[in-house]
Amino acid sequence: MRRIKIVSTAKYLPRNKVTAAEIDKKIGEKEGWVANKSGVLVRHFASEDETSPVMGAIALKEALNKAGLKLEDLDAIISTSGTQAQEIPCTASLIQEQMGGQNSGIPCFDINSTCLSFVTGLDTISYMIDSGRYKRVALVASEVASVGLNYNEKESSALMGDGAAAVIIERTPEGEQSSIIGARMETYSSGAHFAEIRGGGTNIHPIRGQNVKEEDFYFNMNGPAVFKQASKLMLPFCERLFSEMDLNLKDVDLVIPHQASKMALKLVQKRLELSDERFMTYVENHGNTIAASIPMGIHNAIESKRMKRGDKVLLLGTSAGFSIMGLALQY
Amino acid sequence: MRRIKIVSTAKYLPRNKVTAAEIDKKIGEKEGWVANKSGVLVRHFASEDETSPVMGAIALKEALNKAGLKLEDLDAIISTSGTQAQEIPCTASLIQEQMGGQNSGIPCFDINSTCLSFVTGLDTISYMIDSGRYKRVALVASEVASVGLNYNEKESSALMGDGAAAVIIERTPEGEQSSIIGARMETYSSGAHFAEIRGGGTNIHPIRGQNVKEEDFYFNMNGPAVFKQASKLMLPFCERLFSEMDLNLKDVDLVIPHQASKMALKLVQKRLELSDERFMTYVENHGNTIAASIPMGIHNAIESKRMKRGDKVLLLGTSAGFSIMGLALQY
Repeated sequence: MRRIKIVSTAKYLPRNKVTAAEIDKKIGEKEGWVANKSGVLVRHFASEDETSPVMGAIALKEALNKAGLKLEDLDAIISTSGTQAQEIPCTASLIQEQMGGQNSGIPCFDINSTCLSFVTGLDTISYMIDSGRYKRVALVASEVASVGLNYNEKESSALMGDGAAAVIIERTPEGEQSSIIGARMETYSSGAHFAEIRGGGTNIHPIRGQNVKEEDFYFNMNGPAVFKQASKLMLPFCERLFSEMDLNLKDVDLVIPHQASKMALKLVQKRLELSDERFMTYVENHGNTIAASIPMGIHNAIESKRMKRGDKVLLLGTSAGFSIMGLALQY
Repeated sequence: MRRIKIVSTAKYLPRNKVTAAEIDKKIGEKEGWVANKSGVLVRHFASEDETSPVMGAIALKEALNKAGLKLEDLDAIISTSGTQAQEIPCTASLIQEQMGGQNSGIPCFDINSTCLSFVTGLDTISYMIDSGRYKRVALVASEVASVGLNYNEKESSALMGDGAAAVIIERTPEGEQSSIIGARMETYSSGAHFAEIRGGGTNIHPIRGQNVKEEDFYFNMNGPAVFKQASKLMLPFCERLFSEMDLNLKDVDLVIPHQASKMALKLVQKRLELSDERFMTYVENHGNTIAASIPMGIHNAIESKRMKRGDKVLLLGTSAGFSIMGLALQY
């Protein structure tokens, strides 16, 4: 149990809305295929001026404003994005720059576990706050998934969306109950190549790499393999997660799952036997926004009053890697 | 103070040694320029089979062997590299795969603050270990800097080297004194573009990016600007760092600085008034190996008995971002 409180959240969705019908056309399917297959009716695609640091900074500014805080009130800015803006430096520095904090000295670094980066970041940084090292930290997930889509790969093209979310956390004041109850992460690299962008890092350099193919720089997903691995692990993983915590699944008020795909969401909801009331679904108008997905869900849940102070909430998801993770908190 | 003990270290240097004279030829300078300018007489460049996950796994296997540990004895594998192997997934998963841990479930994620990634990772993860969340964690920094060198930019081409280092940390057993005494990080994004690789992430996509230039995928460094920023910050930063800790600089037995360049090392040594005995220099036969530089120094210091149990050691460096960080530990 760590005395951590989410004090403010915000999200940013790019101006440009892209409908399922537009994606149908792009991938050469008849109208209705994308909506039916992915469940994503609308997603947002970033324009050239909406880079990931720009979107992250817009979300963070709004989160600060809502809480009546200034940039200088933050002890650290952590980018918990699954994609980087540049190979060097880390994205958090570029967000600090977009915030106008060039001379602030606020420590900036990135935590990355692809789609689970935000949950991993929240889990990891919570120990620094609970111990008193940092008082108040911003976690920012900002993603431009669209730039890496391979439209020859219909399934993933139907799914992904862009956007950013910011979450500000503090040590819980005396007399309040907000906390992180527990968390667990497991990584099975047997699935490391089920979802990947092979290029862009040092393995396949765009100019110096050997036998470089255009596809190496696009997202490549073996959907059925990911689904099979998630399907196999979901229940035993949740059993291990809850066995370590002073909490039962039946006492969780709301589950906010990574919005991987409509099919993945159905799998989780069915396996965990969750009613629609206890299960957040927002893939239909966001798409899968990589690591921004879960913090967008937290923001949506708070805004729509589905997540109230005192509620017990489970963040749950899988990511490329292959990793599976759950984190239970009292809001 | 966190009760953390470094229990084992290892490093891996690629087979292919590259002399200063060879770099002189590559950049069109007469023999002696590189040695004189950078102080790097020999560095190692990775061959095609020596990818960053491969090198990281070799170092980690050796660190485990030296400690009589198996992969399954690790509670987490953290990649603390400044470059990624692939854009997706995180490098730690790919290291787990190279270790043969595909079905181990050991949690894997990356922490990135460019050249300071290892120090940031050690600092951050120490709170998870001190609190009992994880018992034993491997931090692995593995870098292929050579693939991103721009040989038209002589100064950075003269500096960089490839390689990997692994450090295994545990909670300090009762009755022992090993600890992290304190740490401080500051980020000034006024210097975010002094050292960067602009491409490779979502900002400049190799195929879809607008007005993409070859140089966008190579390391670009404004050496004098970095030096000026580091020079200005070094002393006041160290004053802030030590003012927060129960330790004086004069009681530090050994400083292990990031081996950024010969000039940067001279600056740090002079500003902090450190004798050669208290200051590790190994840039001459390693080069600047990005985030692998400081953990290689820890390994070298232990192997050469310059760092003994009970010694107080300061890790200190700057990174692209621009960040400056110090971490004091008792070995």
